[in-house]
Amino acid sequence: MHIKSCSTYQQHLLRPHRQYTICQTHLRQSSLQHCLLSKGHKSVAFQNPPPPERIVFSGIQPTGIPHLGNYLGALREWVRLQDQSDEGTRLFFSVVDLHALTLPQKPSSLKTWRKQAFAALLAVGLDPRRSTIFFQSAVPAHTELNWILSTVASTGYLSRMTQWKSKLELPADADLENPDARSRLRLGLFSYPVLQAADILVHRATHVPVGDDQRQHLEFTRYTANSFNHMYGYTFPSPEALISPAKRIMSLKDPALKMSKSHIDEKSRILLTDSYEAIHKKIKAARTDSNPIITYDPIKRPGVSNLLEILSHLDGRPCSEIVTDHGFISLLALKEHVADRVSHHLAPIRETLIGLLEGPSDHLDTIAREGAEAARLNAEITMANTRRNLGL
Amino acid sequence: MHIKSCSTYQQHLLRPHRQYTICQTHLRQSSLQHCLLSKGHKSVAFQNPPPPERIVFSGIQPTGIPHLGNYLGALREWVRLQDQSDEGTRLFFSVVDLHALTLPQKPSSLKTWRKQAFAALLAVGLDPRRSTIFFQSAVPAHTELNWILSTVASTGYLSRMTQWKSKLELPADADLENPDARSRLRLGLFSYPVLQAADILVHRATHVPVGDDQRQHLEFTRYTANSFNHMYGYTFPSPEALISPAKRIMSLKDPALKMSKSHIDEKSRILLTDSYEAIHKKIKAARTDSNPIITYDPIKRPGVSNLLEILSHLDGRPCSEIVTDHGFISLLALKEHVADRVSHHLAPIRETLIGLLEGPSDHLDTIAREGAEAARLNAEITMANTRRNLGL
Repeated sequence: MHIKSCSTYQQHLLRPHRQYTICQTHLRQSSLQHCLLSKGHKSVAFQNPPPPERIVFSGIQPTGIPHLGNYLGALREWVRLQDQSDEGTRLFFSVVDLHALTLPQKPSSLKTWRKQAFAALLAVGLDPRRSTIFFQSAVPAHTELNWILSTVASTGYLSRMTQWKSKLELPADADLENPDARSRLRLGLFSYPVLQAADILVHRATHVPVGDDQRQHLEFTRYTANSFNHMYGYTFPSPEALISPAKRIMSLKDPALKMSKSHIDEKSRILLTDSYEAIHKKIKAARTDSNPIITYDPIKRPGVSNLLEILSHLDGRPCSEIVTDHGFISLLALKEHVADRVSHHLAPIRETLIGLLEGPSDHLDTIAREGAEAARLNAEITMANTRRNLGL
Repeated sequence: MHIKSCSTYQQHLLRPHRQYTICQTHLRQSSLQHCLLSKGHKSVAFQNPPPPERIVFSGIQPTGIPHLGNYLGALREWVRLQDQSDEGTRLFFSVVDLHALTLPQKPSSLKTWRKQAFAALLAVGLDPRRSTIFFQSAVPAHTELNWILSTVASTGYLSRMTQWKSKLELPADADLENPDARSRLRLGLFSYPVLQAADILVHRATHVPVGDDQRQHLEFTRYTANSFNHMYGYTFPSPEALISPAKRIMSLKDPALKMSKSHIDEKSRILLTDSYEAIHKKIKAARTDSNPIITYDPIKRPGVSNLLEILSHLDGRPCSEIVTDHGFISLLALKEHVADRVSHHLAPIRETLIGLLEGPSDHLDTIAREGAEAARLNAEITMANTRRNLGL
């Protein structure tokens, strides 16, 4: 079946003087390239950027059930973006399971964690009718573009990036000839900013909600997009970071550290599946200090300030206002209030998430399959353009 | 449509105590993984290697019309392998166009060169009914596996390999902190042995015809396969090199160097499309020496020895025998004889090749599409197995 138009493609990627006929069948079979070529298209790179469409992309690594820090720092922001974006904005949210392989994984854990992360995206309120939700590994164009971008990405730039060093616990000034790096650094960990750039660019994302600690990677993505465009003609828009106001939720057990999946003590984090009782228990046991008066001072009193921050994010009120309201009550009462608010807020998410994880897998499978199909379709538009510009 | 059996899959990849049902529809849609999972398969890695099937893989970079060195050193060997292999052997030959991107390419040249390389594979006698002939870029599993293998590949090992240094004209002992490497080395050039390993392993190749200079890369492939199998359970057979008797055809202009596409003087090489006249002209102008007596001595008399080698490869007789036969004639007569033999041998190849390049592109397109489909189908079996073993 041939169709005469594909509005997204026509609107955003085509020059007015070109007439494209897109073959839906070929597109589905991942051979749009062949189809376009067979219509006699020339391998001419676009000289000027097309008017930008607004496309949001972000990804979450499958590390199990997300915790409150993941939720307030990222997932809830994604849902807000989804709910507040105008109709013309397209949104892509991915469980980036290929990134999980950069450090050794137990296959059975990865399998469980993938499902948990995917279900969590739905449970927090991402709506597959509005957002494209998919597993990265189900869309081969991500790794295809990863290779292509690797041919323009500088190893010098990658070697200066910090994350591979921190993951291997090497000093920040370590280089590739560091003996530990030579023996332990795998190519995947070293080069994963390139896959991350491919994740973003393959969907022609213009806006990427990222944490402050990911700014460096988005900068690398922009540099890679620009290098490619410079070499082969305009192909990728340069994405912008959407940095939300800092929302660093700290560990309940060690408030100097971010709340994290990897902390040894399970009581240091609240999971989206935690029960009312579990949440109360963890927050009551949260490390604070011996000062019974409640004040907000993240430097000197990180424990109590973290609880106030959580409340502030849930209630959408500044910490100072909360302190005024709650300054007279005891620490215990504050903890109870925070636990109540957290468990109240998470209750519907928890219920949906457990329902999705314990229910028949068909439902999740269907959403994942449809998401992957939509993501493949969008990515294939970029890839057809990329291949043409490369002469492939 | 569901089918109950897939003989290759069952024969080679499955344990006898397992019953798999393979869904052809899903396989075509690159989601065999989903289909297998939906049949309730467990993510258990194979503990023992399955009985090996015999699969041959090799690839050629698209650098334009192949020359006599490419032909005698590789392409003719591939055709022999094809024609002499028993029915159970499967053969995959690829135009590895993604490798071509590791050094900057002019898109219009790459486009032409891809077509020329593909047509040359057919012209020399590879038969699409017997061998799977395809463009690497048309089979996304190559880059998908490239990423996966990169997560086990050591950067230390890659940094010791020689080719990235020779391509950048750096000393063989240069490391990644060499200032030139830091500024000029792109990730794709550094990491292309990983893509090469993926090319081979994604087709479960057991035998790889390679030149002697590629031994190091096949060793890397074996190491990568073993590392992966060690971490995630048996997934990839360890391929063996098929090194044919050294067939280094030297430049006609500088017999100390291999015949090469990149030599500045076009008369240094004979292309498969060269006419009778062009071949005679080039061979008559070949650099030899002033000794009118014909002897075989590659060290002291590389020019005349190169001509004897060419004759030896075409006639399938040792150089010594040829010298005995031709020892009495003049150098000019030897050159004429070599030119006659070369042009006679290449005539049908040349005719077919020009016919393919100048004829309607539908024919080549159809073969390329069918080859890509067959290669995708075979690669998808490996990928389904790989993903399952990883827990994806």
